[in-house]
Amino acid sequence: MKHELPAYAVLPPCQVTVVDTYGENEKPNGLTVSWTGIAVSDPPHVMIAVRPGRYSHADLCGRGEFTLNIPSENQMQETDYFGITSGRKTDKFADISLTPVPAMHVHAPMIAECPLSLECQVTIRQDIGSHSMFIAKILAVHADERILDENGKINVTAMRPLSYDHAKFWYLGLGSVLGKAFSAGKTLHKSR
Amino acid sequence: MKHELPAYAVLPPCQVTVVDTYGENEKPNGLTVSWTGIAVSDPPHVMIAVRPGRYSHADLCGRGEFTLNIPSENQMQETDYFGITSGRKTDKFADISLTPVPAMHVHAPMIAECPLSLECQVTIRQDIGSHSMFIAKILAVHADERILDENGKINVTAMRPLSYDHAKFWYLGLGSVLGKAFSAGKTLHKSR
Repeated sequence: MKHELPAYAVLPPCQVTVVDTYGENEKPNGLTVSWTGIAVSDPPHVMIAVRPGRYSHADLCGRGEFTLNIPSENQMQETDYFGITSGRKTDKFADISLTPVPAMHVHAPMIAECPLSLECQVTIRQDIGSHSMFIAKILAVHADERILDENGKINVTAMRPLSYDHAKFWYLGLGSVLGKAFSAGKTLHKSR
Repeated sequence: MKHELPAYAVLPPCQVTVVDTYGENEKPNGLTVSWTGIAVSDPPHVMIAVRPGRYSHADLCGRGEFTLNIPSENQMQETDYFGITSGRKTDKFADISLTPVPAMHVHAPMIAECPLSLECQVTIRQDIGSHSMFIAKILAVHADERILDENGKINVTAMRPLSYDHAKFWYLGLGSVLGKAFSAGKTLHKSR
């Protein structure tokens, strides 16, 4: 039995990412973003949504170059720090133990310790209500060697990304492998 | 040490959803979609990305009304079935054991057995490369009573949503609660 709740933004579990840009005076800055998703497979694009009040918003509207860093669960505290502090008031990277390194294809820093970083260039901005959606082309993917398998593919279970439960404001870890996509439903297919 | 890989669409772990519309002759149809995310908090909007070749694409471009259903891990097989079959060739709901029920605010079916369903109205379509992005307003949220806590809040750990590892094509379960958002980073704040 389902109950109707007032409409709100709920789609659990969300990815947890850190969006990195250079702010004023080339200060590397990071902002935790969970309103994100893949927008296009080919050419690859992501969507991120950021409130206009956030310090990073001007950089995203201006140069429009950023990196999308996917932290591991052992970077949960630092990831949260990027969300609860503002680049207007502090140098977040100087405050914590993560290292900004220059990206290769865009003018933005990447977080060296995050297992996965995407270099992104904004192509479309859409302002709706509380947020600006930035649709951005992925120019390059950087993966730590510890999360690559013997075929050079990303091993998400080794990566240990965080998920965000925005109904209760928890960070969640990754669960077990439950089945194979494009395959698990085949038995239903045969039984028809 | 990071390695640069060719640019591709990777942002693990992705949500797993089933997008429901009425197709030709009012046939309820479902399509598995993992390229999705919250786009705006207020008024609440989601983004879903669908290839133009999919049967549901015409319904999304036309009436633009759909429900976004978040299945539980015990619906993994049926969820996969919605992805590997086409509404052009079969009546997916008739093939499997899930029940389409009419939504209340849009002309689209919801999946009765899914713990969470959002009623959505497309407001903006953006065609880029392989996909159409549909940005849609959330008009209502329907949550099964089994996933609501004593305060009427959604309990994601009871919901058991699936995640999609699109690097290796696995469905993943939900992991443990690791920490509190907007809080976990506070100790770093104090140590400055």
